Amino acid sequence: MSGDLPTTATAIADAVRAGRISAREVLERTLRRIARGNEALNAFTLVTSERALAEADAIDAARTRGDVLGPLAGVPFAVKNLFDIAGEVTLAGSKINLDDPPAAADATAVTRLNRAGAVLVGALNMGEYAYDFTGENAHVGPARNPHDPTRMTGGSSGGSGAAVGGALVPLALGSDTNGSIRVPSSLCGVFGLKPTFGRLSRAGTFAFCPSLDHIGPLARSAADLALAYDAMQGADSRDPVCQPEPVESSASQLDAGIDGLRIAVAGDYFRQQGTDQAIEAVDRVARTLGARHLVELPETPRARAAAYLITNAESSNLHLERLRTRAADYDPDVRDRMLAGALLPATWNLQAQRFRAWYRREVAKVFERFDVLLAPATPMHAPAIGARHMTLDGQEMMVRPHLGLYTQPLSFIGLPVVVVPVHTPGSLPIGVQVVAAPWREADALRVAAWLENHGYEAPPPASRKE
Amino acid sequence: MSGDLPTTATAIADAVRAGRISAREVLERTLRRIARGNEALNAFTLVTSERALAEADAIDAARTRGDVLGPLAGVPFAVKNLFDIAGEVTLAGSKINLDDPPAAADATAVTRLNRAGAVLVGALNMGEYAYDFTGENAHVGPARNPHDPTRMTGGSSGGSGAAVGGALVPLALGSDTNGSIRVPSSLCGVFGLKPTFGRLSRAGTFAFCPSLDHIGPLARSAADLALAYDAMQGADSRDPVCQPEPVESSASQLDAGIDGLRIAVAGDYFRQQGTDQAIEAVDRVARTLGARHLVELPETPRARAAAYLITNAESSNLHLERLRTRAADYDPDVRDRMLAGALLPATWNLQAQRFRAWYRREVAKVFERFDVLLAPATPMHAPAIGARHMTLDGQEMMVRPHLGLYTQPLSFIGLPVVVVPVHTPGSLPIGVQVVAAPWREADALRVAAWLENHGYEAPPPASRKE
Repeated sequence: MSGDLPTTATAIADAVRAGRISAREVLERTLRRIARGNEALNAFTLVTSERALAEADAIDAARTRGDVLGPLAGVPFAVKNLFDIAGEVTLAGSKINLDDPPAAADATAVTRLNRAGAVLVGALNMGEYAYDFTGENAHVGPARNPHDPTRMTGGSSGGSGAAVGGALVPLALGSDTNGSIRVPSSLCGVFGLKPTFGRLSRAGTFAFCPSLDHIGPLARSAADLALAYDAMQGADSRDPVCQPEPVESSASQLDAGIDGLRIAVAGDYFRQQGTDQAIEAVDRVARTLGARHLVELPETPRARAAAYLITNAESSNLHLERLRTRAADYDPDVRDRMLAGALLPATWNLQAQRFRAWYRREVAKVFERFDVLLAPATPMHAPAIGARHMTLDGQEMMVRPHLGLYTQPLSFIGLPVVVVPVHTPGSLPIGVQVVAAPWREADALRVAAWLENHGYEAPPPASRKE
Repeated sequence: MSGDLPTTATAIADAVRAGRISAREVLERTLRRIARGNEALNAFTLVTSERALAEADAIDAARTRGDVLGPLAGVPFAVKNLFDIAGEVTLAGSKINLDDPPAAADATAVTRLNRAGAVLVGALNMGEYAYDFTGENAHVGPARNPHDPTRMTGGSSGGSGAAVGGALVPLALGSDTNGSIRVPSSLCGVFGLKPTFGRLSRAGTFAFCPSLDHIGPLARSAADLALAYDAMQGADSRDPVCQPEPVESSASQLDAGIDGLRIAVAGDYFRQQGTDQAIEAVDRVARTLGARHLVELPETPRARAAAYLITNAESSNLHLERLRTRAADYDPDVRDRMLAGALLPATWNLQAQRFRAWYRREVAKVFERFDVLLAPATPMHAPAIGARHMTLDGQEMMVRPHLGLYTQPLSFIGLPVVVVPVHTPGSLPIGVQVVAAPWREADALRVAAWLENHGYEAPPPASRKE
């Protein structure tokens, strides 16, 4: 195959299956891209060249034998460094974890992508212990935005946003507790999927907050999200939270377009605080889709507060022993949050969980009237790396906790969300959240695919534009 | 029908269905019994004569019409006063609740027993807000033990134990969070069933601790427990915790005996601290059953501590507003526990829940080897009313929290338990817990019915013995 390597998983897998390029060739070009591009982006913390070569060669051998190749045949992918990779230490963005033994087995998500033919090329930078919306890491430095390396990627799946936004790999996995897939997707101008809570197995990932953690893919097209998501679905005895049913083929539904989907714009809270660019991105998408209704999700500020509190309490409980013995080795911003969380009263956490049940029921009523809601993904485009404060709607606030103000209330009740990039040449990209009812990922993916066909594409990285 | 009214639900329903006695006659005799016997026992806080007469007459009218009567036709029953009765205030043992509006509808359990033909005759005394193992109530006085009115009934379903143990009614409902059905069953010498967590709907009951609350019946025979339990099973849209499946007919299995059941005695923790009488009761039952194996449930003291902590945290959260505004109107013992619970750190409660998952898994392994375990129900027979301290195994401890030391670790992981009375003429009765694997209530009921056939019967109340 001559010319540029395709930047989507779909095109690469098609080419590999058709024999227009070998998996080995895809991999070698990808490794060269990473070698060239990673210095600027600081996306990778580990490149698994040896393992990747073996996986690619196995794909090529299978093709030679005439085996049917998987839907992701030869597609290089990388994972946020909180996914277990057999034989490697799972860092979760921390230097404390360097003392851990190497993982004995791959995370279930890695195994399933491998089984679909994808080739693991490495592990990606992330905010320490995933408690982060910036993509900055105190130990290995910040991941850098592929559209302006002086700017944040967003976090905590910052390396995932940088690697996909920078076209180093077509596909990456991230995790999302309060927005950690959606914030970097927005700031890096890529598609990202946070599925319904309980849909994808979290087995073999370093937990942050058990009642809120999700995993999901970032990619440069909606079809690629669907392929990766379909490959990862299904029950997993290693993760009791993972729901066995329903398993759906979302990829086969993308051509259905948006006919029959009742689409509305989330009002009130979701139209406040954001910059003009954030609100206009939603309005532009709404116009394209012909969505005219505004709907309210009641008590959303409280939902965000409750999500914050539960995150703080659950994460600090998981870190208790580490906080006692290794406090000095944490990123100070993470440590201080964790210590505060360890002091929260039980009754607050229980109250937040009780409110959560109420909020879930109230939002379910909205989904009786609509199938899909639109909301901003972040209140602004990528801030400068190192920025501690930002001004939103005339109010100065901290960057780190507030980049997720639109994502947090939605993951709180486990709704599936696809982020779609909105891009105007000359400005930084920003994302829009396409939110579906629980277990209706395919609805959000259909809308995303339709928007992609109507001009909402992942912008090429800055290096390509030069 | 001449002679005494039968004391079991099975015998009463048989007689009513066969036309040997009318439901009205059963009811009138029962109301006379209550009028005569309640002064000594302080079991009832409300007698619903008018409603009961209407229900009894409806049963008789149905029989006259030739309708098929339910399995509990004409059986009088009463409920712990935390079950909603339409038109009545749900006291939950508190004077604070006197200011609440009357319940708009019956609790689901009441509706289902009514549907099976049972006749509601009233509401029963209980420890305040169910936070109690003694059966003493600070506002209306203690329920009194039917075998010695100077002694405790056990709690918190103290009125339920007194009413059934005193043969005022053949059937009562109680609730059990840490032992509140099983402790009064043991001290009052009756059969009691605490089903699997999630088996029976709690809708329309005053919650104490959402992740631990169960409801269940107390009766004078295992067959009566089975009839009531079968009538109450099944999904309930009003209680999302109630599991729709499996629904079983336990009553039809009682004749199966104990063939094929692997029965063991719980060792270690469950053979420590109790009086000789408590341990010998278990040994006697084990000998009767031919059970020779001793098994360990690991880390059981920790399980009890964790159950305590979760109870404290969850209950105080539900009471927060009431504690702020009505603290002086609580039973001081309950208030002080609640205030302490409101100050617990979230991380302790989360740690207890995490340990709970571990303990559930470990105990599940024991149930791979055995179907039924035997354990004491209480560490001693009924203490004197007003006793604050007791000495167990040479150690002085508070009565109120420690009467449940054998029940608490088992409800913590939601196991189904039937208490079987063990009685030697001349001494007070004491109960043995027959513990089955989750969702295997029928196994415990089979063992209880078999033991009943081998001499383990509910002793007649003291008034009958005279």
